[in-house]
Amino acid sequence: MGPRWKGKGSEAKALADPMSKIVSQLKSTLIQSDSHGLLSGCSILLEVETEEQTELLNRACFGRPIVTAQKDKQWFQLGMEEAFYLYYNLKCLKIVGEGKCTKTEDELWNYMKSKRETFPDFLKAYTHLRTRNWVVRSGSQYGVDFIAYRHHPALVHSEYAVLVLSEGQGNANGRLRVWSDFQCTLRLCGSVAKTLLVLRIDRNSVGEDSPSCLESYSVEERTITRWSPEQSREDKTIASSQLL
Amino acid sequence: MGPRWKGKGSEAKALADPMSKIVSQLKSTLIQSDSHGLLSGCSILLEVETEEQTELLNRACFGRPIVTAQKDKQWFQLGMEEAFYLYYNLKCLKIVGEGKCTKTEDELWNYMKSKRETFPDFLKAYTHLRTRNWVVRSGSQYGVDFIAYRHHPALVHSEYAVLVLSEGQGNANGRLRVWSDFQCTLRLCGSVAKTLLVLRIDRNSVGEDSPSCLESYSVEERTITRWSPEQSREDKTIASSQLL
Repeated sequence: MGPRWKGKGSEAKALADPMSKIVSQLKSTLIQSDSHGLLSGCSILLEVETEEQTELLNRACFGRPIVTAQKDKQWFQLGMEEAFYLYYNLKCLKIVGEGKCTKTEDELWNYMKSKRETFPDFLKAYTHLRTRNWVVRSGSQYGVDFIAYRHHPALVHSEYAVLVLSEGQGNANGRLRVWSDFQCTLRLCGSVAKTLLVLRIDRNSVGEDSPSCLESYSVEERTITRWSPEQSREDKTIASSQLL
Repeated sequence: MGPRWKGKGSEAKALADPMSKIVSQLKSTLIQSDSHGLLSGCSILLEVETEEQTELLNRACFGRPIVTAQKDKQWFQLGMEEAFYLYYNLKCLKIVGEGKCTKTEDELWNYMKSKRETFPDFLKAYTHLRTRNWVVRSGSQYGVDFIAYRHHPALVHSEYAVLVLSEGQGNANGRLRVWSDFQCTLRLCGSVAKTLLVLRIDRNSVGEDSPSCLESYSVEERTITRWSPEQSREDKTIASSQLL
């Protein structure tokens, strides 16, 4: 299953305007305005300085715009992985907590881990895909962890439904342990024309003391599809293969 | 979501021909012919004596007909729960193992438990629905444990996608432990117009030494649906309710 572009010209548009360039522009403008996100539960709220920033956040698909009573101000709500990626990988966002104190790297890491036990693995998976220029969004609509788009969702349908499995912790997030879950997930992916991509994170016994641990984590990528005897005989479809 | 009958007249047909009567006719004919099923892995193979029996097995939805080289003989393949229900609850089927030895109740019980750890709970769920005249089939097509029909699948679409959860064993079959699995299962149920029915089996510390334990197991029934704020306000839909 290849990318399903939305209408004519979308593929050309995407090619002419690579995601790497959009993200790099976003990075520049956020650095320029010395942007600070505000920690609020499991979200990070970002007040946007210019219309250019709003546009770039939308084009790069980070967070989602939220409506407030302040008519002349635009806020964005970022997820934990998104915010940490902008903070730690792109180094274009600072994050403040209560009392407007800027959080240190370790404070932020420990806070997010405390909010969600699986945060280090989810962050590794998110980072793995984002650094390869996939657009990564929440998969809750389809009952998976993330969905991945080749380019902006306005141009192309999402290609992968992503599940993050944690190695060596007894599979912390508890998916795909039984056949019925496999069948359920595959049937759903089939009906919405996505391929199931399983990212298995192996922490390689490195622990999770600081974000630098992430560099030692490894990611095993597997796409999983139903094996159909007839189809496989005629198309030489491969049931499970490495990706990216 | 009520029953979705297949075409006009189906509901009347079902009413005129209740499932309880069909099953009772099947029971009589199997007793009359002293029927024996042959244990073969996780299946029980049943050689059918008369065309009437073939028809009744099909109408009552027990097992599925299998094609063999013997043109004049019809065989049916029964699942473990189906066969045990016919054997133990309806007392209309004997089961033989290798060497044509008739299995005792305990032998059969231990054999089936050894084939699938969750057998006692699945059997309890199957029996629970069958004794209430639901037609129960494998749910593997939808990634659930069973699907339940109000009457024969030729007359009505299946109403419930059934998941069996085991209480007190750390949820042996490992489903619905995380939100993403809930979302995945509900989204799939929605797209195939079924209601998710979760049967939670509580063994009440009785153990699983013999089939008589089943009588002490209790079954908690829950239907699970997505809660939609708009819909709930207008239709007074209840998110989770007792069933049957």
